[in-house]
Amino acid sequence: MQSVAIVGAGDFIGAAIARRFAAGGYAVHGGRRGGEKLAPLAAGIAAAGGRFTGHSLDARSEESVAGFLDAAEAEAPLAVVIFNVGANVQFPLTETSERVFRKVWEMACYGGFLTGREAARRMLPRGAGSIFFTGATASMRGGAGFAAFASAKAGLRAVAQSMARELGPQGLHVAHLVIDAGVDTEWVRARMAERGVVPGEGALMNPASIAEAYWQLHAQPRDAWTHEMDLRPFGESF
Amino acid sequence: MQSVAIVGAGDFIGAAIARRFAAGGYAVHGGRRGGEKLAPLAAGIAAAGGRFTGHSLDARSEESVAGFLDAAEAEAPLAVVIFNVGANVQFPLTETSERVFRKVWEMACYGGFLTGREAARRMLPRGAGSIFFTGATASMRGGAGFAAFASAKAGLRAVAQSMARELGPQGLHVAHLVIDAGVDTEWVRARMAERGVVPGEGALMNPASIAEAYWQLHAQPRDAWTHEMDLRPFGESF
Amino acid sequence: MQSVAIVGAGDFIGAAIARRFAAGGYAVHGGRRGGEKLAPLAAGIAAAGGRFTGHSLDARSEESVAGFLDAAEAEAPLAVVIFNVGANVQFPLTETSERVFRKVWEMACYGGFLTGREAARRMLPRGAGSIFFTGATASMRGGAGFAAFASAKAGLRAVAQSMARELGPQGLHVAHLVIDAGVDTEWVRARMAERGVVPGEGALMNPASIAEAYWQLHAQPRDAWTHEMDLRPFGESF
Amino acid sequence: MQSVAIVGAGDFIGAAIARRFAAGGYAVHGGRRGGEKLAPLAAGIAAAGGRFTGHSLDARSEESVAGFLDAAEAEAPLAVVIFNVGANVQFPLTETSERVFRKVWEMACYGGFLTGREAARRMLPRGAGSIFFTGATASMRGGAGFAAFASAKAGLRAVAQSMARELGPQGLHVAHLVIDAGVDTEWVRARMAERGVVPGEGALMNPASIAEAYWQLHAQPRDAWTHEMDLRPFGESF
Repeated sequence: MQSVAIVGAGDFIGAAIARRFAAGGYAVHGGRRGGEKLAPLAAGIAAAGGRFTGHSLDARSEESVAGFLDAAEAEAPLAVVIFNVGANVQFPLTETSERVFRKVWEMACYGGFLTGREAARRMLPRGAGSIFFTGATASMRGGAGFAAFASAKAGLRAVAQSMARELGPQGLHVAHLVIDAGVDTEWVRARMAERGVVPGEGALMNPASIAEAYWQLHAQPRDAWTHEMDLRPFGESF
Repeated sequence: MQSVAIVGAGDFIGAAIARRFAAGGYAVHGGRRGGEKLAPLAAGIAAAGGRFTGHSLDARSEESVAGFLDAAEAEAPLAVVIFNVGANVQFPLTETSERVFRKVWEMACYGGFLTGREAARRMLPRGAGSIFFTGATASMRGGAGFAAFASAKAGLRAVAQSMARELGPQGLHVAHLVIDAGVDTEWVRARMAERGVVPGEGALMNPASIAEAYWQLHAQPRDAWTHEMDLRPFGESF
Repeated sequence: MQSVAIVGAGDFIGAAIARRFAAGGYAVHGGRRGGEKLAPLAAGIAAAGGRFTGHSLDARSEESVAGFLDAAEAEAPLAVVIFNVGANVQFPLTETSERVFRKVWEMACYGGFLTGREAARRMLPRGAGSIFFTGATASMRGGAGFAAFASAKAGLRAVAQSMARELGPQGLHVAHLVIDAGVDTEWVRARMAERGVVPGEGALMNPASIAEAYWQLHAQPRDAWTHEMDLRPFGESF
Repeated sequence: MQSVAIVGAGDFIGAAIARRFAAGGYAVHGGRRGGEKLAPLAAGIAAAGGRFTGHSLDARSEESVAGFLDAAEAEAPLAVVIFNVGANVQFPLTETSERVFRKVWEMACYGGFLTGREAARRMLPRGAGSIFFTGATASMRGGAGFAAFASAKAGLRAVAQSMARELGPQGLHVAHLVIDAGVDTEWVRARMAERGVVPGEGALMNPASIAEAYWQLHAQPRDAWTHEMDLRPFGESF
């Protein structure tokens, strides 16, 4: 058995990834702030016959991330580490406080660096393993009002690129997935409803469909690895 | 049963894609110039229990492409059309003849437009189908000596982008795969040997591994489609 | 004295470039289909004390382009060659005829290759000269309905990249300018009015302002050359 | 008279920019850590008849950046603010400490955000002003060993993009310059010599040539603004 660690298992994508890899036979460890909130996810996976352990985690802390990955390694060798922490905020530039700019970066970029580095330290001696990062539209493009979020996501993408170039020849598969649309969840539909928007057919993504892409990426043979791919629903304008 | 049509089935990637989709239960039609050369591929697929029909095809001819796709439709509805024609040449700019520049474009770009448009015409009434294009490093970057090839490949990529944006909301999955390394074939190894190069581990790609990526793309649910992905072996510098 | 040759001197940008370089003391040669239409431009430049010669030119013909550049060289050594042929069309993919796709490419991409190659042949023996290409939004992105135009413009951009990488070390400055907005002309305002659009402040570009960018690019010292720059008015969304 | 403020005036590019704008008639303020080291630059500009004031500055401190810009405003309205802080480091990923990753980001990205925001706050009421950011090869591409530097530079580029989109329609010109080669300084030549490298002709850039590009950008009319341009010497491979 091998293990999978998901930093940022609290949102719908993270939960779906956990379910997908548990269904595939991995011992899955999920971390988020307030790890006790992972209990329903853990129960669901257990009921389906899978293995899942929830952890409280601060992705901005070296010790917390290292301890989390160590816990996964203690159960089984880490095959996959996924960084899936979001921090989407929007402010006019002049109203973007230094506290917000720093915090968004710490969560969405710095935490990704820590996660990637700690994963690499554990995987390099074995010369194998996958390290995947969740990106967004803002990873590719700094839109008006998104200075903080786009800066952090672009910085995370650069970490993924740099890691892919350095670690690929050492046997680690590093990839960055650009999730370029909204995810179909009650929360997103409620926010859209507040704005009077009814999502058309093909406007939202199912978390399970996104999770499948992570699964397929890890299944790629190492002579044909993808470093970057986008994902969006068929009805999305881009 | 559904059918798959591959324009440019003559190279190692095209043959591997044919084998993959035949193994997956599709009736595969492959076209190339001198279609009789597809006999060994057809025999191999038949021996494995699959369905494959070879065709002579000129990808630069509207009639030839349309006739090829009609033949596939006549067997079963087209589910997937793949444009996989290469035309990699390298010349100093001032030695690039207008004939070469035009011919490379006709094969690698114009043929892709014809294939994509004819595929769309057949798939749009059903509101479903996949149209995939094989790209290369040159699709993303015009290197010295590659004015003709890079221009054609960049033009093909733009066709794929434009089609994805127009046809996605109508239910067609259009994707562009960037094959960013050499393929592990006798021919490539011979060319490298001529230059005194021995490919290191992780330097070349297995055609079957590339074909698997096309297979996975077609399997994506339509709420999480990839428009573009790169593929390279773990040892590749990029 | 040195000469400047502009392939596609018939539109507002081409005319403005001609005026700018004539004002800067160059002998300017402008080519377009129906060269007699350049008479008012020639008269205006002459009245301002500049030198301008108009030519009939088919940018898709090797002989025509070569003859045009030879005429400029016959007056004075070519310092700058600019390719400024547009061919903006929009059609749904399935209604894009092969004739349109081919013609747009011949004008907007193939003509650029011919112009660049013929310019290089004349400039390389001197190890100096500038070759500039006019790009557009579609050079960077294939939008819905723009398969033909975006494919040609992306192909032209790849030609420019390839030339820059090959010819830069030989002393030629190759650059690609991305004009990412409408140009303020009576024709554009008339087309907008037809659609009931009144352009807001900052929505359109003055051709003279665009021409100034070409002038500045040519003035760059060769230890700090720009290969690509975008231009848009302050009010443009992008 | 108007003023120009340069955050990161300590390196060769920053000093050259200061000289260029002082020669153009602006009151230039330059900030760096250890502002007393700017005395020779100040003396040189004064000897040439220009105005320059050096400041000690911590680009990572909101108060320090704000105070610096206030000092420039106190002399004359700010017309141009330039963020030119570098922090180029290279480490294998697993040897990149969290302290290094954070510090490089604070200097090269966070400081840029603070500078841009504080500049915008002062310029927006006037609806005019230029805010320019110095980028590097790493802004566009995360190379092996450059996770920290590339992440910070990519993050800075996203800040510039986001600012350009938000502030352009309000009259501010935001641009990002990609300096894609080494700069011709004694320090760079010494480092190359240590590695046994003699730079070929066309391999290095003169700081004054780079400074000229900033000058030209500020001179652009607002109906034809550049948001991004690259700069490299004619002999550079890219």
